Amino acid sequence: MPKPPLPDELQRVLANPNPAIIGTVTPDGAPNTVATWYVWEDGHAVVNMDEGRKRLEYLRREPRVSLTVLDGESWYRHITLHGRITLEDDTNLEVIDRISKHYMGNPYSQRDRGRVTGRIEVESWHAWNGGKAWRP
Amino acid sequence: MPKPPLPDELQRVLANPNPAIIGTVTPDGAPNTVATWYVWEDGHAVVNMDEGRKRLEYLRREPRVSLTVLDGESWYRHITLHGRITLEDDTNLEVIDRISKHYMGNPYSQRDRGRVTGRIEVESWHAWNGGKAWRP
Repeated sequence: MPKPPLPDELQRVLANPNPAIIGTVTPDGAPNTVATWYVWEDGHAVVNMDEGRKRLEYLRREPRVSLTVLDGESWYRHITLHGRITLEDDTNLEVIDRISKHYMGNPYSQRDRGRVTGRIEVESWHAWNGGKAWRP
Repeated sequence: MPKPPLPDELQRVLANPNPAIIGTVTPDGAPNTVATWYVWEDGHAVVNMDEGRKRLEYLRREPRVSLTVLDGESWYRHITLHGRITLEDDTNLEVIDRISKHYMGNPYSQRDRGRVTGRIEVESWHAWNGGKAWRP
């Protein structure tokens, strides 16, 4: 599988507010997937979770993640990033506000819960376009 | 997490040709995700893979999967199915033709490769609608 950095064309796609799904592994070794917001910043995917999310427990135990990003214009184009996540408290909700503005145009509405930021260091990636490898 | 059967409203969503992402676990314990077609038949999600897919190796070793289905009308509504997959050769490409017609209106174009069908027995599920649990 190709290694980073990703081609510019794919990084331009990743910079859009696309649908994405994050895959993690539970402590008993099962896969877990859920839709998520992310932002693409300096060659990293950045996600953010409510402090009560079960997924945080999974990630503290197993930091490897898989993030599949669907091109918002056509989900037949998709990019998957494999990497490791590092977690950090989102003090003052700065990161979730940035992500919320990226997707919704507004700061994040819920202000009474702590949040945690996950920064994904990409180790490998693959991309598909209509059933064929997408390697621009 | 809720157990099947899923509420009728969610089953009606699952019956549409939605974007979906399947999560598996690799032999070294890492998560793997990729976009996929699926069909919802008799309370099961059915997927189909080229016989050469690496994912088949993963699934033969670890049959647990997580399938996140995005509602085609808004990806802020999504349903995740957790379950186990059973694999079977897709003789005569009957299943991939059914899936291709569901998404594209036509039988599957590539006829010179073997394919394998995966039938997912749902063990639990969760659904989200705009950041809140979706329990119709």
